Amino acid sequence: MEKVLNSSSILPLYHQLQEILRENIESGVWKPGDMIPSEYQLMQEYFISRNTVKKAIENLVQDGILNRVQGKGTFVSRPKFEQSLIGFYSFSKVMKERGISPKDVIESIERIKVKPRIAKQLKLKEEDYVFELKRIRYAQEEPMIFETSYIPEKYCLGLSREKLEKNSLYDLMQKEYGIFVTKAKETFEPILIRSYESQFLEIEEGYPALALDRIAFDAYEVPVEFCHSIVRGDRCRFYTELL
Amino acid sequence: MEKVLNSSSILPLYHQLQEILRENIESGVWKPGDMIPSEYQLMQEYFISRNTVKKAIENLVQDGILNRVQGKGTFVSRPKFEQSLIGFYSFSKVMKERGISPKDVIESIERIKVKPRIAKQLKLKEEDYVFELKRIRYAQEEPMIFETSYIPEKYCLGLSREKLEKNSLYDLMQKEYGIFVTKAKETFEPILIRSYESQFLEIEEGYPALALDRIAFDAYEVPVEFCHSIVRGDRCRFYTELL
Repeated sequence: MEKVLNSSSILPLYHQLQEILRENIESGVWKPGDMIPSEYQLMQEYFISRNTVKKAIENLVQDGILNRVQGKGTFVSRPKFEQSLIGFYSFSKVMKERGISPKDVIESIERIKVKPRIAKQLKLKEEDYVFELKRIRYAQEEPMIFETSYIPEKYCLGLSREKLEKNSLYDLMQKEYGIFVTKAKETFEPILIRSYESQFLEIEEGYPALALDRIAFDAYEVPVEFCHSIVRGDRCRFYTELL
Repeated sequence: MEKVLNSSSILPLYHQLQEILRENIESGVWKPGDMIPSEYQLMQEYFISRNTVKKAIENLVQDGILNRVQGKGTFVSRPKFEQSLIGFYSFSKVMKERGISPKDVIESIERIKVKPRIAKQLKLKEEDYVFELKRIRYAQEEPMIFETSYIPEKYCLGLSREKLEKNSLYDLMQKEYGIFVTKAKETFEPILIRSYESQFLEIEEGYPALALDRIAFDAYEVPVEFCHSIVRGDRCRFYTELL
């Protein structure tokens, strides 16, 4: 590993240090759970200022590659949860397949008049009602996703917290309402965590996240759910295969 | 549209205002290029503080939904560029299909010894060399993606700036080196723009972006390129269809 930073490079020093630390982690020199050298050690080793070290580390913490433990030090994070975008995506199913126990916490369920932009996605009329369902999805006791689903009331009369606590949403739709979700369209874009979501996801404001909008369709191509998810970027990443 | 914010809601006021503004835009009440009401007008209209208005607007600016023009006002942004994750992804091809003239600027091309983590992805030996190619990809004169590609030297002897200025990388690989890229694996995760990338992408540090890693394979499943892209989150989004 290159031990000297190049002060005449167009790459800022913090960026060079960041790449060296990242290299150590991704090439396996440092393993998840390992403590990295202290700020002072890094300053000495690379002849750089404390601010440069701080900036490099802070960036890697925000990217979820390192994590700080108060009074202990900075550690290499566990690998991120990888989620496939190939085939249909079900959070609980994917987690179970990997031997990870998923958990959903229902934050709220309310029957509300549909908002115009949701009406557009779900092809509803202005006067239609939807259930607005807010859930926090956990993997191994860590909150990963904050999800808000909108389900047209007319398709799922009497949907309730009690019912949702016993079944997954799609299982319930199928078993109780005869709706088979067979297709979904997703758009996603990177955003920043805001204070409102930060409380549910237990991370700081300003951290990177993925906003994912999904429209789920039944076998007749009728849109039956619109779902807006905020996925923690420091703990999750996505993959796909292109042919 | 609801005109009154609910101060007893668990939704913070800035969040409620943000959702109202977003609703106006996504339902088409306000169109791209429209100027939205001034901070002062919004304060008056919703009986809220300037800080609340500022926070709601700042969040929507960072998300790329609004943009500020110094001395003029705040405007609804043009829609984001949508990129499909269905089938093989080629930036220049997608842009051309939409009648948008793409442009690539080669920032640098260097022959360097492969770094361990790139060697791992490209199945190279420690002593192998790669071309490190940095490019900025534009759509309609706006920088969208900052890309760093690593191409094993042994597959593309003599690769140069001159050659890359006349052909796309994949066209060149095919025509001059007989390499057909037939498959790619991509992982992506949300990150924050850092000062190093911000200069190339002409946006501020701390804005949301997507980091996309792609390994491209030839017809024999040999990895022939590793590419790390930073995609502007305020100007691009992705979509896919799940079956």
